[in-house]
Amino acid sequence: MTAQLSKKSEAWSARFSEPVSDLVKRYTASVFFDKRLADADIQGSLAHAEMLAHQGIIPAQDHADIQRGMAQIQSEIAAGKFEWLLDLEDVHLNIEKRLTELVGDAGKRLHTGRSRNDQVATDIRLYMRAAIDDILGLLRELRLALVDLAEQHADTILPGFTHMQVAQPITFGHHMLAYVEMFGRDAERMADCRRRVNRLPLGAAALAGTTFPIDRERVARTLGFEDVCHNSLDAVSDRDFAIEFCAAAALVMTHVSRMSEELVIWMSPRVGFIDIADRFCTGSSIMPQKKNPDVPELARGKTGRVNGHLIGLLTLMKGQPLAYNKDNQEDKEPLFDTVDTVTDTLRIFADMARGISVKPESMRAAALQGYATATDLADYLVKKGLPFRDAHEAVAHAVRTCVDRQCDLSDLSLGELKVFSALIDADVFDVLTLEGSVAARNHVGGTAPQQVRAAIARVRALLG
Amino acid sequence: MTAQLSKKSEAWSARFSEPVSDLVKRYTASVFFDKRLADADIQGSLAHAEMLAHQGIIPAQDHADIQRGMAQIQSEIAAGKFEWLLDLEDVHLNIEKRLTELVGDAGKRLHTGRSRNDQVATDIRLYMRAAIDDILGLLRELRLALVDLAEQHADTILPGFTHMQVAQPITFGHHMLAYVEMFGRDAERMADCRRRVNRLPLGAAALAGTTFPIDRERVARTLGFEDVCHNSLDAVSDRDFAIEFCAAAALVMTHVSRMSEELVIWMSPRVGFIDIADRFCTGSSIMPQKKNPDVPELARGKTGRVNGHLIGLLTLMKGQPLAYNKDNQEDKEPLFDTVDTVTDTLRIFADMARGISVKPESMRAAALQGYATATDLADYLVKKGLPFRDAHEAVAHAVRTCVDRQCDLSDLSLGELKVFSALIDADVFDVLTLEGSVAARNHVGGTAPQQVRAAIARVRALLG
Amino acid sequence: MTAQLSKKSEAWSARFSEPVSDLVKRYTASVFFDKRLADADIQGSLAHAEMLAHQGIIPAQDHADIQRGMAQIQSEIAAGKFEWLLDLEDVHLNIEKRLTELVGDAGKRLHTGRSRNDQVATDIRLYMRAAIDDILGLLRELRLALVDLAEQHADTILPGFTHMQVAQPITFGHHMLAYVEMFGRDAERMADCRRRVNRLPLGAAALAGTTFPIDRERVARTLGFEDVCHNSLDAVSDRDFAIEFCAAAALVMTHVSRMSEELVIWMSPRVGFIDIADRFCTGSSIMPQKKNPDVPELARGKTGRVNGHLIGLLTLMKGQPLAYNKDNQEDKEPLFDTVDTVTDTLRIFADMARGISVKPESMRAAALQGYATATDLADYLVKKGLPFRDAHEAVAHAVRTCVDRQCDLSDLSLGELKVFSALIDADVFDVLTLEGSVAARNHVGGTAPQQVRAAIARVRALLG
Amino acid sequence: MTAQLSKKSEAWSARFSEPVSDLVKRYTASVFFDKRLADADIQGSLAHAEMLAHQGIIPAQDHADIQRGMAQIQSEIAAGKFEWLLDLEDVHLNIEKRLTELVGDAGKRLHTGRSRNDQVATDIRLYMRAAIDDILGLLRELRLALVDLAEQHADTILPGFTHMQVAQPITFGHHMLAYVEMFGRDAERMADCRRRVNRLPLGAAALAGTTFPIDRERVARTLGFEDVCHNSLDAVSDRDFAIEFCAAAALVMTHVSRMSEELVIWMSPRVGFIDIADRFCTGSSIMPQKKNPDVPELARGKTGRVNGHLIGLLTLMKGQPLAYNKDNQEDKEPLFDTVDTVTDTLRIFADMARGISVKPESMRAAALQGYATATDLADYLVKKGLPFRDAHEAVAHAVRTCVDRQCDLSDLSLGELKVFSALIDADVFDVLTLEGSVAARNHVGGTAPQQVRAAIARVRALLG
Repeated sequence: MTAQLSKKSEAWSARFSEPVSDLVKRYTASVFFDKRLADADIQGSLAHAEMLAHQGIIPAQDHADIQRGMAQIQSEIAAGKFEWLLDLEDVHLNIEKRLTELVGDAGKRLHTGRSRNDQVATDIRLYMRAAIDDILGLLRELRLALVDLAEQHADTILPGFTHMQVAQPITFGHHMLAYVEMFGRDAERMADCRRRVNRLPLGAAALAGTTFPIDRERVARTLGFEDVCHNSLDAVSDRDFAIEFCAAAALVMTHVSRMSEELVIWMSPRVGFIDIADRFCTGSSIMPQKKNPDVPELARGKTGRVNGHLIGLLTLMKGQPLAYNKDNQEDKEPLFDTVDTVTDTLRIFADMARGISVKPESMRAAALQGYATATDLADYLVKKGLPFRDAHEAVAHAVRTCVDRQCDLSDLSLGELKVFSALIDADVFDVLTLEGSVAARNHVGGTAPQQVRAAIARVRALLG
Repeated sequence: MTAQLSKKSEAWSARFSEPVSDLVKRYTASVFFDKRLADADIQGSLAHAEMLAHQGIIPAQDHADIQRGMAQIQSEIAAGKFEWLLDLEDVHLNIEKRLTELVGDAGKRLHTGRSRNDQVATDIRLYMRAAIDDILGLLRELRLALVDLAEQHADTILPGFTHMQVAQPITFGHHMLAYVEMFGRDAERMADCRRRVNRLPLGAAALAGTTFPIDRERVARTLGFEDVCHNSLDAVSDRDFAIEFCAAAALVMTHVSRMSEELVIWMSPRVGFIDIADRFCTGSSIMPQKKNPDVPELARGKTGRVNGHLIGLLTLMKGQPLAYNKDNQEDKEPLFDTVDTVTDTLRIFADMARGISVKPESMRAAALQGYATATDLADYLVKKGLPFRDAHEAVAHAVRTCVDRQCDLSDLSLGELKVFSALIDADVFDVLTLEGSVAARNHVGGTAPQQVRAAIARVRALLG
Repeated sequence: MTAQLSKKSEAWSARFSEPVSDLVKRYTASVFFDKRLADADIQGSLAHAEMLAHQGIIPAQDHADIQRGMAQIQSEIAAGKFEWLLDLEDVHLNIEKRLTELVGDAGKRLHTGRSRNDQVATDIRLYMRAAIDDILGLLRELRLALVDLAEQHADTILPGFTHMQVAQPITFGHHMLAYVEMFGRDAERMADCRRRVNRLPLGAAALAGTTFPIDRERVARTLGFEDVCHNSLDAVSDRDFAIEFCAAAALVMTHVSRMSEELVIWMSPRVGFIDIADRFCTGSSIMPQKKNPDVPELARGKTGRVNGHLIGLLTLMKGQPLAYNKDNQEDKEPLFDTVDTVTDTLRIFADMARGISVKPESMRAAALQGYATATDLADYLVKKGLPFRDAHEAVAHAVRTCVDRQCDLSDLSLGELKVFSALIDADVFDVLTLEGSVAARNHVGGTAPQQVRAAIARVRALLG
Repeated sequence: MTAQLSKKSEAWSARFSEPVSDLVKRYTASVFFDKRLADADIQGSLAHAEMLAHQGIIPAQDHADIQRGMAQIQSEIAAGKFEWLLDLEDVHLNIEKRLTELVGDAGKRLHTGRSRNDQVATDIRLYMRAAIDDILGLLRELRLALVDLAEQHADTILPGFTHMQVAQPITFGHHMLAYVEMFGRDAERMADCRRRVNRLPLGAAALAGTTFPIDRERVARTLGFEDVCHNSLDAVSDRDFAIEFCAAAALVMTHVSRMSEELVIWMSPRVGFIDIADRFCTGSSIMPQKKNPDVPELARGKTGRVNGHLIGLLTLMKGQPLAYNKDNQEDKEPLFDTVDTVTDTLRIFADMARGISVKPESMRAAALQGYATATDLADYLVKKGLPFRDAHEAVAHAVRTCVDRQCDLSDLSLGELKVFSALIDADVFDVLTLEGSVAARNHVGGTAPQQVRAAIARVRALLG
């Protein structure tokens, strides 16, 4: 065992005259968070060793020894028996040292033609590819759960709000489908990001490539990468994919935050549109009556965490000269926490979507408050020949009268309505009903139940 | 002219009992920044009117009047004669009011079946699609300029740095190609974003769709959109595309900041690797000798601006309930400033790339400082049979000796070198040369001049 | 006139061999946004000139000429007749060139012993000191307006919410005072920031101080600075105060966003706690009935802008080596926009606070929904001897029963209540009233009307 | 033991009909990060119990029991024997449950007159007050270490840079003092923040205060708070102090990042101004010669983390309605990580400052490159009567000539110099020396060694 791979309480290598201090060791070590890359690290090392052997850079026996050693290490890690040492700084040196203990010189030959710089870049990409695949699955599950909820309430009417003021009647199914669209775009972005993640940095070595006759395409094929990184300096210093992932994750959480905001408001007693199953709520240590929608609130709060990680990574990379700098070690914790946050949140939301009870009567009552069909009246007048702007103004007068009288448009008599426009006839009362209003918005993307059902079918077909 | 479209110093519409205060008017108006959407607004209105006429919702004559009026408005704007009124709040009402002045009732019918909510969403998407196309062109120009610079210096050797310490010799061409890769990924991200921008929200009306028999696919075709937005609530409240664009832009600027950092350091007299043409530099008001690399410094600083806009937009959307809220008006200024910043910066960088003079002698001198070929020596020993870890340690001892003697590895005699490993022979001096070192890294992505030339050819082929 | 101060379409100074390109000129110029520093710039120059003359560095006649020239320039600017030239890059060179036109050599002597680096730092600090003083005044006005509103509603009961669920009855006056506290802390932070703004950088010159026998304390006294910056390198490169200001501003806007969120929800028809005067609202281009709370929504949205500027400035300064770098020019636009945003928002909120109409009946109705006095019942049991945790559990059972029966706690008979605890007696009904509940929280910081009035008196005394 | 305090795998309280799911339990629990508040929690509970007993709200025996129980719990925690249960959600319920196990009904009475909402707010403030005090101590240590380094090098000359171009000669002592100023402002900000942290929320209970006759000032005195929070709604929902702390911490890290950037550049072989002791550096897994300045690089990278946490907290609080929402639980992890990051970084920097070796010869060599005394020559001409602007231009011509000839200003003969101005005499060569240049900047804040020593004395006096 060389000094480099032994304890850092000894000097880092023969080039150094004093060991790293304990505080420095703790400050600079990454093993306690990067050990989650162990699987990816071993996977990458095995592919590298296979290529080295195939190219004749190491003997076949070394390759066999490395395979044997790594299998042993994997089982030690799985069994919780692997001893992670702070003194060995990171996941890579911990595993390499153990490998050398187990298989001797073959272990010392594994690092031929590579550096930790390209090794860690490869590990993170393998880890992230798997994380994205998980997230894609969870986004699918959440969309399916929301589509099911939408289907149950394709005809349930609630007021659509703009500016939190009653705008026009919509269906709850239509409202849920808005989130299905958002999470659909999230899946698109994650898939786009995956393409850029799925490129092999290994072979870049420290920064310039290596003098050994390596075959990078072979390693890429073994590991399932779609391409190799085409410039070694870029390969070891690129963290775009982590930032792009966090940006896509920030949008996922933005959508979660919007849905959470609505769930919290809808469950507030004055609104009372929904209830969330007890298993997603908690109570109060002081107020015995409380049932709080903890899950959506906490999810809304976690948006901040992910936005913060995004900014953390952008700040990290700003103005960094090429190639690798130690700053980059700071990429992992925000990335890992973002993966965990998004994964947990999507899983719990897919579950919670099935624990939402809708209260159609409250929704209906609310839709009758606030002149939700005023636009329908204006459209009615337009169809009778009035220019839209004049129709808008005529209805504004009618609403003003209703506000003063504290009544609804449909409470006015035909005679009273005619005051605002002589074009109004008895058929006006059809367009003033909630059902008439939603059914009339019957085009692609509109809120009519027929369109909601068509949209549901479309999404289900897309999700296979 | 109805009250709604007249001055807001009068009441907003018949529904209101008092006018908006002057301070409020100024606070809420957007016309002074959203007038840059005028072209997009007119383009969208024309496509909408064409569809209304085709569907028989408005008469053909109205369509003709609207076309005539809009042509007039476009020429007034182009001539700088269009009068933008704060009292009319935004670009949409300003144009619609002028249209009604010009063509009467046809103008009042234009807003049939739409709302400002879907109208502004359409305008921004049209604007952004054009902005992305500009940026894609500029990224291409910048990459071509960098590729040309790389070609001129495919053989020019400088030290590659990690941790700002000399690592291994690389070629300047190879270094420039690292940025070509980065800006290439930026182009990929912009193109991905464009797909999500290029969907039509029009037809969503206020939030629920419209009661008129509109044909959204027709409008999409007219405007060159690839798809329609499939949910009206989402269509009017979605600003994902703006955030995704700013995230992609933040990565562009991150790359710019890294390149700028290097240019600034390289032009510092102690380093002296390059000079930047005077036309990109300024002097000092007090120090007569100064020539400062203002452009890269300022570009580096502008990274902050774009990161800030990204966070601004994420903060804006966090926790917003559906559908449209006035908060969303705040999307435009950060977006416009991001477009301007990225566009100006890329244009100036493509120009500046052709104003960089390389100083090969300084680069060479620097490459000879710092034991840049130590890894080559270790690889040499590996090829003679030593396991890599042992070779690494042997060379570390040799470097330690050189540090103490203040000499280079190549200054040691064969006898002195043999002290560190008996495997060292006379052929060792070949691997200790800079040229030998770079030429040996001869695989895809490596720094060997042959690979640099191959990479240049590859990029040129990609860029058509 | 020297080349430096003439057009930048000529070479920057004699040291340069080619002029700055037009694109570069536009990219690097700051005059179109930094001209807002003109007053501060002149004020600083006059104090500098006065000191130069007092120290005998320039003749008294030069000082008189500079005073005369500056008076002329001030009147030209005030009259809108000053010609700002892009070619002269920034506010400083524009003013200095005009001064030299007006007074000749005295103008060329003004820059003795200073640089633009310390000059701009001084200008920004003078500008910010005034901006902070404005903001302090506006925070005071807003607090007074809120205190008045609180006083009108010291007895008006509404439900206090946690998790948007009904928690306990509170008074509207008490609720308003929560914001008075927040804006009070904002004023503290602004005042703390002001102390660090109010230090003089002038005399640092380019970065190292000057060889002229200047008297910095004299200039500080003239300009009303409390201290001088004690290190010249720091003086020219410090932008802490701008970041600290933006951080304080971000908290102001965070408070504004919270209040806005509540106003928007309270004005939503299902809640209906308040109305906001028409002059702070706008309507819809399509929905004739709409009255939207634009001002609080837009203010909530503007939080993003200020958070973004804060991150922009932090990103800007990250990793900048000493001393001045051109990056720093990017400090101004975010700073100015932050000042404008906070100033406009506070002014409009102070005004709007007086346009809020409270609807006490809706508030009362809401307070009767959701078992707001359950904690009072638990406290009642504690006072009868039950440990708090057991009391909490007993009341939880009672609430569960009421939820099932869809009734309130006060709807249960004494006999029914006794099922949950034998300790309950007829006096329990007093603690179940809203008035009893709020009056009972009668300690410093509690919601009892008596405490609200005491708090109002305290704040008024503080605000003088 | 009531259900509330038993396992959450059972229902939350009698009010709930189903238990929280395992995923929800893990998602919403905070005990694994908030257990670091245990000391503060116990301290707060003891002060609360003391007051309850003093006010006669609980019997003296209960108080004694609580004290005994808490002492036991503290020793269990100290010994690592306390069992933290996820099922009990947070630090508060874990401790309260154990207390009740140990002392029975007295434990159940502890929560009288308080809620977790005011309890956790109190705990965080106690924790942060201690953290700020630590940080203030570390800032002092770092400043003292830098002052010592400054004193050793009060006369060591290096080039001062602006735009990374040589500007004017400065002393290394002066340069170090710039950081002393920055960290001094950081200490001011932390102290200002401490005043706002040090106010007692306890007594606010859930949000409205309590019906028990509590004495908040008594608790404040016991716990060393300077004031009580004056509004209960604000007391439980205020997280300003956490944001203000993170903003102050972001500035600390910004300063650290700037110093780190300089250390990294200075240690780069082309610059070679300093060396950092081996114990703060590490090597490379592939390149045997490398010695990398890991500590400053990593510290620079950690700036991103703290900026991210700041944005995370601002995003968290944006638009939150009053009073407490579950979102707020997300305040702790970013806050704790910020405390850890700043604390570790300052400690290691204070240590590392004593491990910096300065290389005066390299600094001197660099100062002779780049016409560092050109401003001195201009000032010389001004003192001979030339207006500054004309002097600047004359020297610019001289520099241009030197650039062409590749020589220094001091290499020109008197005759050659006179070509640029007839005012130049033999005494000019004094002002062209580095020593003459620095010594001449002899005013408060200037770089003259005399001023550096005065500044050192001033700082030492301030730091006591």
